Amino acid sequence: MLDLDWLFESVAQPDEAARAAAIARQNELTKPPGSLGRLETLATDFAAWQGNPVPTLGRIGLAVFAADHGVAAQGVSAFPQEVTAQMVANFAAGGAAVAVLAREAAADMAVVNLGTVTPTDDVPGVVNHRLAPGTADFTRAPAMDGAMLAAALRAGADQVSADRSLFVSGEMGIANTTSAAAVFAALADLDGAATVGRGTGVDDAGLAAKQAAVDAGLARHGERWAGRSVPQAALTILECLGGLEIAALVGAYVTAAQRGVPVLVDGFISSVAALAAVHLNAGVAGWLIFGHRSLEAGHARVLEALAAQPLLDLDMRLGEGSGAMVALGVIRSALAVHGRMATFADAGVSDHA
Amino acid sequence: MLDLDWLFESVAQPDEAARAAAIARQNELTKPPGSLGRLETLATDFAAWQGNPVPTLGRIGLAVFAADHGVAAQGVSAFPQEVTAQMVANFAAGGAAVAVLAREAAADMAVVNLGTVTPTDDVPGVVNHRLAPGTADFTRAPAMDGAMLAAALRAGADQVSADRSLFVSGEMGIANTTSAAAVFAALADLDGAATVGRGTGVDDAGLAAKQAAVDAGLARHGERWAGRSVPQAALTILECLGGLEIAALVGAYVTAAQRGVPVLVDGFISSVAALAAVHLNAGVAGWLIFGHRSLEAGHARVLEALAAQPLLDLDMRLGEGSGAMVALGVIRSALAVHGRMATFADAGVSDHA
Repeated sequence: MLDLDWLFESVAQPDEAARAAAIARQNELTKPPGSLGRLETLATDFAAWQGNPVPTLGRIGLAVFAADHGVAAQGVSAFPQEVTAQMVANFAAGGAAVAVLAREAAADMAVVNLGTVTPTDDVPGVVNHRLAPGTADFTRAPAMDGAMLAAALRAGADQVSADRSLFVSGEMGIANTTSAAAVFAALADLDGAATVGRGTGVDDAGLAAKQAAVDAGLARHGERWAGRSVPQAALTILECLGGLEIAALVGAYVTAAQRGVPVLVDGFISSVAALAAVHLNAGVAGWLIFGHRSLEAGHARVLEALAAQPLLDLDMRLGEGSGAMVALGVIRSALAVHGRMATFADAGVSDHA
Repeated sequence: MLDLDWLFESVAQPDEAARAAAIARQNELTKPPGSLGRLETLATDFAAWQGNPVPTLGRIGLAVFAADHGVAAQGVSAFPQEVTAQMVANFAAGGAAVAVLAREAAADMAVVNLGTVTPTDDVPGVVNHRLAPGTADFTRAPAMDGAMLAAALRAGADQVSADRSLFVSGEMGIANTTSAAAVFAALADLDGAATVGRGTGVDDAGLAAKQAAVDAGLARHGERWAGRSVPQAALTILECLGGLEIAALVGAYVTAAQRGVPVLVDGFISSVAALAAVHLNAGVAGWLIFGHRSLEAGHARVLEALAAQPLLDLDMRLGEGSGAMVALGVIRSALAVHGRMATFADAGVSDHA
């Protein structure tokens, strides 16, 4: 029997007394009540998450999960599959966008190879957890088997430390917008046309190939999850259509919520993983912050399915965790003003007419 | 004769060769072309502004201009007028939101008192340039005379140093959303209903009082700018309806563009000042970045009049420069990835299929 029971264990409970104290503090700070908008709700959410009316941003964990996808054979990406392992090396060497942003933010970045076609055993700084040379092409066979799914979920979980104040994550994998679109379509009962976008920048033929691949995957495997419970369907969908790095994201999100670490979610692929995590364990939703709205076509719809309001909308569509790392600055500002502004009483400012 | 001719002198010219070189660099970085969205255009804009294909964010200037408004007598604010000087002291002491964010960003903040009802001569850290104990109530008389307008414009200009890589500004003044709404209405040929919002949080009666005050100001003074040229009308509008801190913002924006320093504009009041600056000198528009979309009702319309796309939309409505200071983090991220990412050649990553 595969051990997946851990996925269904309760998440941590936010501390509502700390939230209430933080809200009271916000109303004492030298500004009109509510005038800092989302900075206020971010600060009071962190208060509840940390059980501290004046939360601070301590060590930040960042994991970038990478893997290859058999569905690349269907001509769904503008880049060759070898790029996944090359980019893993580029993350570790510090040259990729997310690596630059991690250095700026002094975040600890782990680069985790779940299964690239090309091995990265000799690349310094990579956590090699290579379960396979990529998934199978889901238009022809299930992307992975249950044992591999369980291992990928666990590998993601292993990247979450309870001593971090925030878990940020990203992904890399040529063809992974196609896998994510298929997972999203299956989770939300949509089709390829509603979930597919241009990813790294495919042309119209590539876009048509992506839609066809998603629809083929749904047609081939759909009966396997039809009629199952929401959590069991989500597991089957990940097995049939998912990616190893997508499963790792799912495992990490569930674990973070269970350990009481809020998660800063990146773009389309990460948000699809977040939706899968919420299907597995509804309590996860209370621990998620959405960093940005990506330009990738399906992202707005995923955010809608999650009732999520992302912090930023900057026409980004790179993935890797890059949008989340830009959004980190907003969180930092929110906690700074919450913790360091003067109150009306401190500053001798009159607080009403 | 008042010396206002300096307002109409040419602005600095962005360096289009540096912009082109920066665009070429963006297309060599290890990411799909365009996938960093607005981070890319921010970086290439800074390249043009700095004449450097790899621009850096050096010293940042921040000025917060404060003054009182005679129109407060019309019951247009939720806070008493004494709060303006109290908040000036709170800026200088570091307890206000913008002061906290300035410390976080290591920005040099100047707090400039253009004319509060209560003097702040004894408050350490305030630049006292108090031209009057606030403006006159514009529903009964012109807010200021020409000499005072000229002095306020110049006081703003004096805060801009050519050795800064960015000029950020904010404002404080009880009743100044009413003054800004009146200026905007006059510049854009609108009325109180289209330009007024709840500011610091007035109730329905306060909102009605604001609309009535704006409409009264337009009715009383409108003939003075009717039929004048766009720049001359803008000066007359500022004189009749403006605030001393709003005029200082206008003078600062024009000067920054003339000295080749890009401006990061804050919310509603700052954006109205930016619109006035563009009416005075159209070239200013090429040097403006809009930090955020405020929740203040009229702001979306001002941004539309400026064809501006703000970086953030976080339901903030505090003013002071607080939204701009949060947006600064996005600019920092943009320049970091532009300057420090690896190229495809550097990283040995394949750049096409």
